[in-house]
Amino acid sequence: MLNVLSPTNIAEELAKITEHWSPRVIGQVNDQYVKVAKVKGELVWHQHDHEDELFLVVYGKVIIRLQDAEDITLEKGEFYVVPKGTMHNPFAEEECGLVLIESVSTKHTGDVESPLTKSIEDQL
Amino acid sequence: MLNVLSPTNIAEELAKITEHWSPRVIGQVNDQYVKVAKVKGELVWHQHDHEDELFLVVYGKVIIRLQDAEDITLEKGEFYVVPKGTMHNPFAEEECGLVLIESVSTKHTGDVESPLTKSIEDQL
Repeated sequence: MLNVLSPTNIAEELAKITEHWSPRVIGQVNDQYVKVAKVKGELVWHQHDHEDELFLVVYGKVIIRLQDAEDITLEKGEFYVVPKGTMHNPFAEEECGLVLIESVSTKHTGDVESPLTKSIEDQL
Repeated sequence: MLNVLSPTNIAEELAKITEHWSPRVIGQVNDQYVKVAKVKGELVWHQHDHEDELFLVVYGKVIIRLQDAEDITLEKGEFYVVPKGTMHNPFAEEECGLVLIESVSTKHTGDVESPLTKSIEDQL
């Protein structure tokens, strides 16, 4: 468990990140990790067969590209939950700061291996 | 499942709330609900035996009073996860807007019944 005895400041945790598409775990609530990530450009098309994934924008704008559905554009203070089993590929024209909520078991890019793929161990 | 096909704007969802201590479910990620709540004053001492509960401040300030531990003061952009089995009682001197993340099974005030207690059905 990653529960801590003090508040976690999301902006401060985001500020520690130096690499795009490299999520950091900053908390845990039940079986879900809370992560922050800075993203720019696109990740890779992938899906998580059994897990939903929540994207919340802290600053900037991200477009969640979905297979067979309209793009979802998220701005500051907005979130979207990519349902399990849905092919998706996030894209940000300019740097965007995100909070992610996903199962502790969720792999970064699903079963797709990409040069951008990070393991959970990388994120802890 | 409460997953929707469009972004959810947290501030807009908070603006719909007319009553303090009356959380509204605005999303679901895996087995966790995402809720918003406006709080002012104190709730009631209670615990959730088997479930953590995340409090994230959107505006204002909330103090999470904990049994046998220092109060946790949360300001905008900060979160704290109350570990399962921990007696707690949130308090806000002025109105505070919160995002809560908790298991779909979590009861509002644990096993404590208070005039402020809301059922999950109230929140949907």
